[in-house]
Amino acid sequence: MSEANPLSVKSAQALVLARVARLAVETVALEAALGRVLAADVGANRNLPPCDVSAMDGFAVRSADLAPAPVALTIVEDIRAGDKPLKTLAAGQCARIMTGAPVPAGADAVIRVEDTRPLAGERVEIGRAVSAGNDIRPLGESMRSGQVVLTAGTEITPGVVAVLATVKCAQVPVYRRPRMAILATGDELEGLDEPLDPDKIPNSNSYALMAQAQALGIEPVLLGIARDNADELADYLRRGLSYDVLLVSGGSSVGVHDHVRPTLEALGVSMHFWRVEMRPGHPVAFGTTPTGIVFALPGNPVSSMVCFEQFVLPAVRQMMGNRRLFRRTLAARLAHPVRIRPGRTEFIRVVLAREGTKDDAATETPAYRAASTGNQSSGALLSMAQADGLLVVPAACGEMAAGYAATVLLLDGSAFQEQPGFAE
Amino acid sequence: MSEANPLSVKSAQALVLARVARLAVETVALEAALGRVLAADVGANRNLPPCDVSAMDGFAVRSADLAPAPVALTIVEDIRAGDKPLKTLAAGQCARIMTGAPVPAGADAVIRVEDTRPLAGERVEIGRAVSAGNDIRPLGESMRSGQVVLTAGTEITPGVVAVLATVKCAQVPVYRRPRMAILATGDELEGLDEPLDPDKIPNSNSYALMAQAQALGIEPVLLGIARDNADELADYLRRGLSYDVLLVSGGSSVGVHDHVRPTLEALGVSMHFWRVEMRPGHPVAFGTTPTGIVFALPGNPVSSMVCFEQFVLPAVRQMMGNRRLFRRTLAARLAHPVRIRPGRTEFIRVVLAREGTKDDAATETPAYRAASTGNQSSGALLSMAQADGLLVVPAACGEMAAGYAATVLLLDGSAFQEQPGFAE
Repeated sequence: MSEANPLSVKSAQALVLARVARLAVETVALEAALGRVLAADVGANRNLPPCDVSAMDGFAVRSADLAPAPVALTIVEDIRAGDKPLKTLAAGQCARIMTGAPVPAGADAVIRVEDTRPLAGERVEIGRAVSAGNDIRPLGESMRSGQVVLTAGTEITPGVVAVLATVKCAQVPVYRRPRMAILATGDELEGLDEPLDPDKIPNSNSYALMAQAQALGIEPVLLGIARDNADELADYLRRGLSYDVLLVSGGSSVGVHDHVRPTLEALGVSMHFWRVEMRPGHPVAFGTTPTGIVFALPGNPVSSMVCFEQFVLPAVRQMMGNRRLFRRTLAARLAHPVRIRPGRTEFIRVVLAREGTKDDAATETPAYRAASTGNQSSGALLSMAQADGLLVVPAACGEMAAGYAATVLLLDGSAFQEQPGFAE
Repeated sequence: MSEANPLSVKSAQALVLARVARLAVETVALEAALGRVLAADVGANRNLPPCDVSAMDGFAVRSADLAPAPVALTIVEDIRAGDKPLKTLAAGQCARIMTGAPVPAGADAVIRVEDTRPLAGERVEIGRAVSAGNDIRPLGESMRSGQVVLTAGTEITPGVVAVLATVKCAQVPVYRRPRMAILATGDELEGLDEPLDPDKIPNSNSYALMAQAQALGIEPVLLGIARDNADELADYLRRGLSYDVLLVSGGSSVGVHDHVRPTLEALGVSMHFWRVEMRPGHPVAFGTTPTGIVFALPGNPVSSMVCFEQFVLPAVRQMMGNRRLFRRTLAARLAHPVRIRPGRTEFIRVVLAREGTKDDAATETPAYRAASTGNQSSGALLSMAQADGLLVVPAACGEMAAGYAATVLLLDGSAFQEQPGFAE
């Protein structure tokens, strides 16, 4: 228990990651592999291209014939992709060839159609000389049989799926995804399926955490709401601890929080921290059992989501075998000054806008401007719905001036923008 | 047909988007709503907080009592979240109060526990005066009953799911996702389930396009491979045109390409372009029917994927109701000079790295450096598996110097990075 020593966000992340192991390997169909992480190296089982092929539509030639260009050559064959050339080119001969088609024996270069002029009969004028190898993709240029083309730990993006299909890897070894349970706690909470009681607080946290997990490819189980009753809480926690990951979100009720910690410890959980010097999200806890991990997240909706971003996200990505555990960051200029109470790293919900109107200027690439979503109260749930990112204010910073280039962590939904954003 | 007029990428995108309509509305459970787009405004059905509540753990007080601070007050009640206060505070009285708990009648401010000192008996010393409203979250601060909290067209991120749960929107109106079919063409292609023939080319395009669509939340149907036979091709295309979106990827065989265009036109497709001034991806076509759209993509694997990025992605995002249709871009400094043949907008596959080692400096935010993945041949499929993004070289640019700040479109997989990337 490091409760006595204030923990920075990055120290707490490191503490979590030091105690989280990759899960076991399973095999999934290529159709279901997107977003998973390869658990083994993958080798090429063929040469690509399988032989020397043309990189262009044009003519396969003997480069020595072209020295006195322009020269007229006789076309002896038409070769398309998938064809097998039938003839060997002799001096003064060429073959019409399509992109991807095999280069015939005797030829050592391709000349693109733009550099030629058709002549009467089956003859063509070649306008310029080229050296051997011109516009030929040699056998094995893309991959050679036996070559490792993908290494274990590679995240399976569409580009990786393309390579897996190329080497005919229809069944893909990947790391398992964690089984995750989510528990809300608090007498004041009202379930999604319960009738509306205007004095209660809707249980939004379970669904927010569910969606954050879904965005990582996990399908969590919602255990429901544990009321302020020690036995009921213990039953729920015991059930939750049978999962790889348990997320407990407190109500804002301290009564329950009083119970969560001793109950987790009574159930054999080793707690590693209960506080991190961050805002929102100060009261956040992390514990381990021999078979799983548990996070006790703040009851406050925004705090709970920010703590998921900082701790649950890198932990589960590590479990799933990812090398990249943290949100992409970018630099953005502050649209206005930011003042905080120093002492804790602060995460401010911001919207991003492009600076200036440089979309059509080829000479300068626009930067981003970050503006607060408004009310930064940890109860201001709408701010989380509006935010493109979390702007980081270091704990020692009391104030950042307008125009300061701050770091923004990009949240879900920020992968796209309204304009193409490039010059042509 | 604008074949005679060379089309820029952005002109072609605009041409596509002008002809693509949003799909119909359907209702999905909140548990399945992530990533969809809201098709109606959503209003609050309650006030949050439901009454004035404490923003801190501390004491609810009458601010007028604190003027001569420090002062000693008598604690008359303990109030937790979910409680209903029983007493009205009289002069000299206060209530112990937890975060989120209702402020009792008579109190007009909260003083946080750090600014107090316990005294003997049920009394507490308040160290400083505060004004009315201090550390109180007033009724309706987060949302007021009847207020529109989410507007139609909002992409459903985890933050939006939290708001939907808060207003108890268990069934969510969203735009339908397109039904999509994918067809590969070419005699030289070998299916994933066929035995390996070293002279053939594996059909990777169907799977790459499938994965690109899956990354957008679509589950496409793979129609298979149409051989170089006009009747077979027509049968496949007819079947594909019954979907909202049909993607046809040519083999590199020109024979098939010769058939695709007249067959589509014979089947009633209006073709709007067949060429875009881009590299890779020059031969890319777009057509429409009264009920759907069709893209004829290059047979080359990298070209096919880049064309999906530039044209299919914004089109299907518009069909699904998204406001943000294009990939997020960022500025990155070139790690090396880039030379291209001018005349076409070029997309170079790059990996991103953080510039310098500024991860722990609070004073400067690091920028990105972009380096080519190496071989930029359109057959170099591994380059697409390795790339974090596509660097855009405008058509008029012959060369960009090392250090130039270029625009990079972030691809799938680039949403995460290996280091936290912020200073604390």
